Amino acid sequence: MARFFGSLRAFSRAVSTRSAWTRGSQRRQKQLISLAAAAVGGIGLGGGSYYLYRHFFRTATLSSWSVDCNEQHGVKAGEVVPGLPEYTLAEIKKRSGGEEGGGRVWVTYGHGVYDITDFLSLHPGGAEKISLAAGSALEPYWAVFANHNTEEVREILEELRIGNIAPAERNKVIQQGPPNSGPYASDPQRSPVLKVNTQTPFNAETPSVLLAENFATPNDIFYVRNHLPVPRVNPESYRLEVKGEGVKTPLSLSLEDLKTEFPRHTVTATIQCAGNRRVELNRVKPVRGIPWTGGAIGTAEWSGARLRDVLLHAGVREDKIEHVHLEGLDNNPLTGERYGGSIPASKALSPSGDCLLAYEMNGVDIPPDHGYPVRAIVPGVVGARNVKWLASVVASKDEYSGFWQKNDYKGFSPSTDWNNVDFSTAPAIQELPVTSFITSPADESILTESSGETSEVTLRGIAWSGGGRGVVRVDVSADGGSSWHTAEIIAGADQPYNRAWAWVLWETSVPLPESREGRVELVCKAVDRSYNVQPESTGPIWNLRGCLSNAWHRIHVHIPKQ
Amino acid sequence: MARFFGSLRAFSRAVSTRSAWTRGSQRRQKQLISLAAAAVGGIGLGGGSYYLYRHFFRTATLSSWSVDCNEQHGVKAGEVVPGLPEYTLAEIKKRSGGEEGGGRVWVTYGHGVYDITDFLSLHPGGAEKISLAAGSALEPYWAVFANHNTEEVREILEELRIGNIAPAERNKVIQQGPPNSGPYASDPQRSPVLKVNTQTPFNAETPSVLLAENFATPNDIFYVRNHLPVPRVNPESYRLEVKGEGVKTPLSLSLEDLKTEFPRHTVTATIQCAGNRRVELNRVKPVRGIPWTGGAIGTAEWSGARLRDVLLHAGVREDKIEHVHLEGLDNNPLTGERYGGSIPASKALSPSGDCLLAYEMNGVDIPPDHGYPVRAIVPGVVGARNVKWLASVVASKDEYSGFWQKNDYKGFSPSTDWNNVDFSTAPAIQELPVTSFITSPADESILTESSGETSEVTLRGIAWSGGGRGVVRVDVSADGGSSWHTAEIIAGADQPYNRAWAWVLWETSVPLPESREGRVELVCKAVDRSYNVQPESTGPIWNLRGCLSNAWHRIHVHIPKQ
Repeated sequence: MARFFGSLRAFSRAVSTRSAWTRGSQRRQKQLISLAAAAVGGIGLGGGSYYLYRHFFRTATLSSWSVDCNEQHGVKAGEVVPGLPEYTLAEIKKRSGGEEGGGRVWVTYGHGVYDITDFLSLHPGGAEKISLAAGSALEPYWAVFANHNTEEVREILEELRIGNIAPAERNKVIQQGPPNSGPYASDPQRSPVLKVNTQTPFNAETPSVLLAENFATPNDIFYVRNHLPVPRVNPESYRLEVKGEGVKTPLSLSLEDLKTEFPRHTVTATIQCAGNRRVELNRVKPVRGIPWTGGAIGTAEWSGARLRDVLLHAGVREDKIEHVHLEGLDNNPLTGERYGGSIPASKALSPSGDCLLAYEMNGVDIPPDHGYPVRAIVPGVVGARNVKWLASVVASKDEYSGFWQKNDYKGFSPSTDWNNVDFSTAPAIQELPVTSFITSPADESILTESSGETSEVTLRGIAWSGGGRGVVRVDVSADGGSSWHTAEIIAGADQPYNRAWAWVLWETSVPLPESREGRVELVCKAVDRSYNVQPESTGPIWNLRGCLSNAWHRIHVHIPKQ
Repeated sequence: MARFFGSLRAFSRAVSTRSAWTRGSQRRQKQLISLAAAAVGGIGLGGGSYYLYRHFFRTATLSSWSVDCNEQHGVKAGEVVPGLPEYTLAEIKKRSGGEEGGGRVWVTYGHGVYDITDFLSLHPGGAEKISLAAGSALEPYWAVFANHNTEEVREILEELRIGNIAPAERNKVIQQGPPNSGPYASDPQRSPVLKVNTQTPFNAETPSVLLAENFATPNDIFYVRNHLPVPRVNPESYRLEVKGEGVKTPLSLSLEDLKTEFPRHTVTATIQCAGNRRVELNRVKPVRGIPWTGGAIGTAEWSGARLRDVLLHAGVREDKIEHVHLEGLDNNPLTGERYGGSIPASKALSPSGDCLLAYEMNGVDIPPDHGYPVRAIVPGVVGARNVKWLASVVASKDEYSGFWQKNDYKGFSPSTDWNNVDFSTAPAIQELPVTSFITSPADESILTESSGETSEVTLRGIAWSGGGRGVVRVDVSADGGSSWHTAEIIAGADQPYNRAWAWVLWETSVPLPESREGRVELVCKAVDRSYNVQPESTGPIWNLRGCLSNAWHRIHVHIPKQ
């Protein structure tokens, strides 16, 4: 066991190597209460760049991945250890978490099976994140959080070894595959870290406890909101059409044209689905739509040509148009109807609007799920207008007439129901309102003592507002709003006025109430640059379509009897 | 009495002549419950253009005014009627409203004294507005709402004649004068319609029941927020200095230069004080500042040179500056410190920012209280940066360092107090958050039946958001938020995307609760183009300086026993 704790110190050093944006996160080390897993819980992480892992983890299988490790590091982690018990994947899942698991947490790595239960409370990144991997493979998590790919970390893991994966299942593909047949059969493989809401079309979110781990969300765990099957585009034959009213010279641009004929611009922008946090509205009264919890939001560094530059190159007359239509290659297999939307021309053409025809996401080609080869990036505007697999850009006097522009993604009064709704009475959502979210601790966590004191809890989260209105303050309360603690903005504070397209990450420690036994509510609320605030509760913002759910974020934690 | 009701019909016709922006206001005629005066309550009004009265009412005295009328119309209204009782102004005030007045409401017009009590519930504009004049002169109100200046209206009034003003007081000036001596002695005369909060400096608001009567607020009743004495500027010697970092050619512009060397632009914009509705925060916990109710907001058509044009003419390099300082001629008589502030350079220079160096307000020279001869208009931005009596425009890398920019007009958490506040931690307020206000009925009104039914109440109000984010919906509830009624936007709906600088006026009829005896709360809340909403209550937005008070507006009305 001495060796175990020696390795643990090395692990702590390894994962506490953080990039600039996580300044202040050292404070987590001083956190007086550590967080134990709730009923079921993954693998954590710490911050760090994910660029390292890019060429490391594609559609690897368990066996090829562990062989890579072995070849590179000469460490036996994940190799078959003769004489240990063998477990099927189903058995591993069953033995991990919940009542059936008897409170134990098992994971796999390579061909190895590990019982990490006793390590949970020692994990420097917190128990809640490591618990995400309960019953499944560590590789997809370590792929995202590459600082775990060290000899020290693998040594710690091997200390926890209890068995081997059953031989027949040792080469199972780690990623989530598409269906074998039907219109969605050519959808790409996806990381199992993503929390899937619907398979066809594929809609999956980032586990919310991982949201604030990186300023730029790793591509593999960036939320996916698809309306239709993913079109598989040949980059050689791809053409982007630029046309419409007020356009002097219609264009038909190849991917190469886009990359070479226009200056390359990079914008770090957060994208959020209009329906993020819909589950909170569902608790008031049922709404229609994907039950996103809080992970349908992500931030990436997008690079491409400026939409403005391309439109001006096509000779568009700003005074002749009001809207710019963005239509994707994704279409309904039955009707042929394409996904599309439009944005105000003033946004598309403004030099400070920063709209892109993006071909890179976090430094690599945009992945198939995120719009390969080209997607629109409309910073500060709802995800729905950041059209993927972009087929055409059409200048127009009129708003786009498609379903998702005219009859969806709009906000209504709580008293509007499906019997009396008239979609023509509300404007299409463009800029989103201010929001914030507690990513750690996880909702319904049990707080446990890791030292003599149990007086405070450390919270971490994200906050963002649409329209480039940066977040200027996040307040947190542990006593129902009687007292508020202003959080430290640990990343994203220095964005330009009204062009603050990316979220902020925040962290703060809050004293727990005097009588702190039992279930305690923790809330956060953000204020944006225009001093707009989040609404206190969900009732008054309830709307039949479940959009625009931006009330104070509330979670509960359990404090056991001392 | 038959003659009285004949005249009343004519009066109704006269005041129901409305301009285009009041479409839908005819519904008020169908209002089932009319509003009687509360304890004290003016003269109403209806809509209509105030341009008519402009040359009519300046610093007129009662006698000169009534003589005007007589000469123009040959009507005896307001003339001395021999044999009637004579009353001093103090006596008229005492006899009107409150317990002492025994429930009667007296007003004066010319030399005449009138008991309008029995007319209150018959007034087509509602009792609450006519009640504003209780105990005082009608002229200032009719000056603003010129549709009363007709023979028919004067005939109705004369029917209610009960006396003459005592001879010694017949020539008393109607407007509110400045002090006789001291630094504020050269402040201008003001309309007595303004609700004064402080005399030196002069800070006064529009009576909130009058706010929604006009889309463009008449100059005489536009709220005044002065920090210092009003500088009296000679237009011949006036110069506006344009200078600073990144300015190639500093300019010194005369008023004539500004009018002739740059294109004239007109912008209809709402201006609001950061502290409007401060009284609502004061009810939570005391705050510092002028106790504005809801009338520190107004809309006007502003004309002048574009700030952008002037800065570009001075050769300013956009990439060299971050802020534009705006400094006024008003200064502290003790220290000489001038009032000033700054705005982001991106706002000042953006073609869609619509910032003006304005020399006209609603078609006339800007009045002394509003910045004669030149004020900055920064649409969508807090009143404090719309600097009046503008002396200089200074381009800079840095924010303006004056008190009102750095140590005032900022927002803080409810847990920040005067012991722990650090003004450097919050950004200066620029764009304001979404707000709305019920202007009619007045708070604590008593609803009375004017017909067989008493099932609903008609509400009217304003709504606005900063940053050009137009208001897309106003919801009203009479049952504590269980059900919401979406109001009709009766003016201001058609403003450009994200350049909706002016408020909207709204109106709706709401069913009263089943058990509708007693005191009923009516609330309104607005949603802006970015779908930001107002917070439900004031507690969580309380801040020590009492700024940014934009919670749902709540009023109470009393429904008497049937």
